[in-house]
Amino acid sequence: MTDLLLIDKADDIATVTLNRPQKMNALSKALWAAVGDAMQALSDDEDVRCVVLRGAGDRAFSPGADITEFESERANFEQARVYGGIMHRTMGAIRDCRHPTIAMIKGVCVGGGLELACMCDLRICGESSRFGVPINRIGVIMAYPEIEALIDLVGRATALEILLEGRVFGAAEAKEKGLVTRVVPDAQVEEDVYASARRIADGAPHSNRLHKKFARRLLDPTPLSAEEFSEGFASANFEDYQEGYRAFVEKRKPDFKGR
Amino acid sequence: MTDLLLIDKADDIATVTLNRPQKMNALSKALWAAVGDAMQALSDDEDVRCVVLRGAGDRAFSPGADITEFESERANFEQARVYGGIMHRTMGAIRDCRHPTIAMIKGVCVGGGLELACMCDLRICGESSRFGVPINRIGVIMAYPEIEALIDLVGRATALEILLEGRVFGAAEAKEKGLVTRVVPDAQVEEDVYASARRIADGAPHSNRLHKKFARRLLDPTPLSAEEFSEGFASANFEDYQEGYRAFVEKRKPDFKGR
Amino acid sequence: MTDLLLIDKADDIATVTLNRPQKMNALSKALWAAVGDAMQALSDDEDVRCVVLRGAGDRAFSPGADITEFESERANFEQARVYGGIMHRTMGAIRDCRHPTIAMIKGVCVGGGLELACMCDLRICGESSRFGVPINRIGVIMAYPEIEALIDLVGRATALEILLEGRVFGAAEAKEKGLVTRVVPDAQVEEDVYASARRIADGAPHSNRLHKKFARRLLDPTPLSAEEFSEGFASANFEDYQEGYRAFVEKRKPDFKGR
Repeated sequence: MTDLLLIDKADDIATVTLNRPQKMNALSKALWAAVGDAMQALSDDEDVRCVVLRGAGDRAFSPGADITEFESERANFEQARVYGGIMHRTMGAIRDCRHPTIAMIKGVCVGGGLELACMCDLRICGESSRFGVPINRIGVIMAYPEIEALIDLVGRATALEILLEGRVFGAAEAKEKGLVTRVVPDAQVEEDVYASARRIADGAPHSNRLHKKFARRLLDPTPLSAEEFSEGFASANFEDYQEGYRAFVEKRKPDFKGR
Repeated sequence: MTDLLLIDKADDIATVTLNRPQKMNALSKALWAAVGDAMQALSDDEDVRCVVLRGAGDRAFSPGADITEFESERANFEQARVYGGIMHRTMGAIRDCRHPTIAMIKGVCVGGGLELACMCDLRICGESSRFGVPINRIGVIMAYPEIEALIDLVGRATALEILLEGRVFGAAEAKEKGLVTRVVPDAQVEEDVYASARRIADGAPHSNRLHKKFARRLLDPTPLSAEEFSEGFASANFEDYQEGYRAFVEKRKPDFKGR
Repeated sequence: MTDLLLIDKADDIATVTLNRPQKMNALSKALWAAVGDAMQALSDDEDVRCVVLRGAGDRAFSPGADITEFESERANFEQARVYGGIMHRTMGAIRDCRHPTIAMIKGVCVGGGLELACMCDLRICGESSRFGVPINRIGVIMAYPEIEALIDLVGRATALEILLEGRVFGAAEAKEKGLVTRVVPDAQVEEDVYASARRIADGAPHSNRLHKKFARRLLDPTPLSAEEFSEGFASANFEDYQEGYRAFVEKRKPDFKGR
């Protein structure tokens, strides 16, 4: 099972690779679960500053769920509920990762593959990559947590357009729809992704973590407690904040320690 | 009154036509009501898979409410409340239609005409079509359900820009603002709309209906019940789901029965 | 302190100018407070129909908070809480201004400067203007009301991209991200802003005020009361409404009195 997913760390940037290149990195039930386990472990890793999620090879990020498994793993209500639970835990684990995340997208990024990518903070893709959620062609539907995530990213009207038409479309249309952060030439995808990861990892860690946390918290309509509200000011006591504004005034590069 | 609105069915696609071409399809109180009645009836029709809403002729979808009626039908608070109730029921009937809906837009699509179009799931328009909500030029305002629908589609800032400036603008700007799904050459509007309707109607009916239902339900901040949450998995027991994934594995076209 | 901020009125359009050109209009604590005071006073001014907010000179709207003050004014939790309270009151005063507001943006519009601009109803900028919120470079974070406002404008994913990458980018990217309403040639910024202000000021005042009020109210998930819901119809009793639809039918320009 270890071969299904690769995890590499280089300095403070981790890379998670969906590793079923012979299946274009289709998501088997085991692979869905493995991605969730990996993201939870990386979230707890204090040395990580940014996580890149990608598919093995250049042909595909992922075409989504491995449909050849459905006859044995997702053929009725009870199996669909279990399968959905695994998917949703994994999607939540990406969304809730304390560190910023980037989906590196080459080639096919469709269905559950696109859903995975949508849980990352940024999505950087090559010009020839392809997108869509053509699940009404096979009678599948997105459960509530999935359609909620898609609506959060592209709005209700665009989410419904994608689901009702079930088209597969190119990178330019994906950008226009708000599905991807940016489109770069195919040959520059890795370079651009790791330049962005480097830039993010060089920011003050508490700034990135609190911005992610606050943006996620605001998905919940429950009013903020006084303690939650104050968290934005508490960071003024952090060493990295003191270092940050002083370095700015002294016109030097700050040296953030993560505390 | 029947002449006000035309309803045609061709196979599983229904077309609803605002039919006051001599008035550019301006929405009289009677026409507002007739659209709502038609959409409710079509929603209940089990043979329909997609509904197209259009204006008669090529000059206009609709310029909005028929203002020449206001002196007799909307001249004070009580009349405005009744008039608004009819508008809002019709807007809700389009939004809540179980079948996917497409607004086919040629020419003028302004004010209440644009509001009608915005309740459809997709909006496909010709290059020379024109948009806007210039109601502050005549002292009219959008009631809460109307401005809520506009904000849902284009966001709060763009909704206010449209309402505060009261400009009428072209198709490219409407696309950029998120008001329309796509812009096509004028001569191809019908072809593109019915190709999209065909594509949508060929999807599994329960996928389209549940995606619409779920996207609408998420407008309500009330937490989902366990039963609602499970509805996404219950469809795994549907015949069309079984047919769908098996046809995919067997590399053949699925034959959906709507059950 | 009066020199910090200039307030001019020409007919029914007011202009508020951040006036620290030697500091590129950086927002000192005193300037944050002065903007809030000015916007509250203008909101109460019955003769005003539109407010333009700008920076002195052509080099900058504002680069944000004056960081050279942080050592004395924002060096710990308690100071950050007080400083944040002033910022948030000012941001609220712009958002809640009864009259439509336009940010006129030339040059640098970054950090707290961009946050100020984002509270206006429209943002019109020159082609060479620059945007971004590179606060993770100095360990600062956006408190909840700030990140909430940014998400309301550009969505959660784009807000996080801006905050996590901390890049400074140009006007075209700002438009694409939904940060600005429109981009015009540098030499036409003033002309375009005042043409828009004139257009807005010529609309029925109650239409503009109620549209702003309704759009703001909908940020609050609390259900509308019956009285609130009816406010959209009550305006049918206003003189300006009667004047508006009659002028339209009589094909003449309406003469709005603001009542």
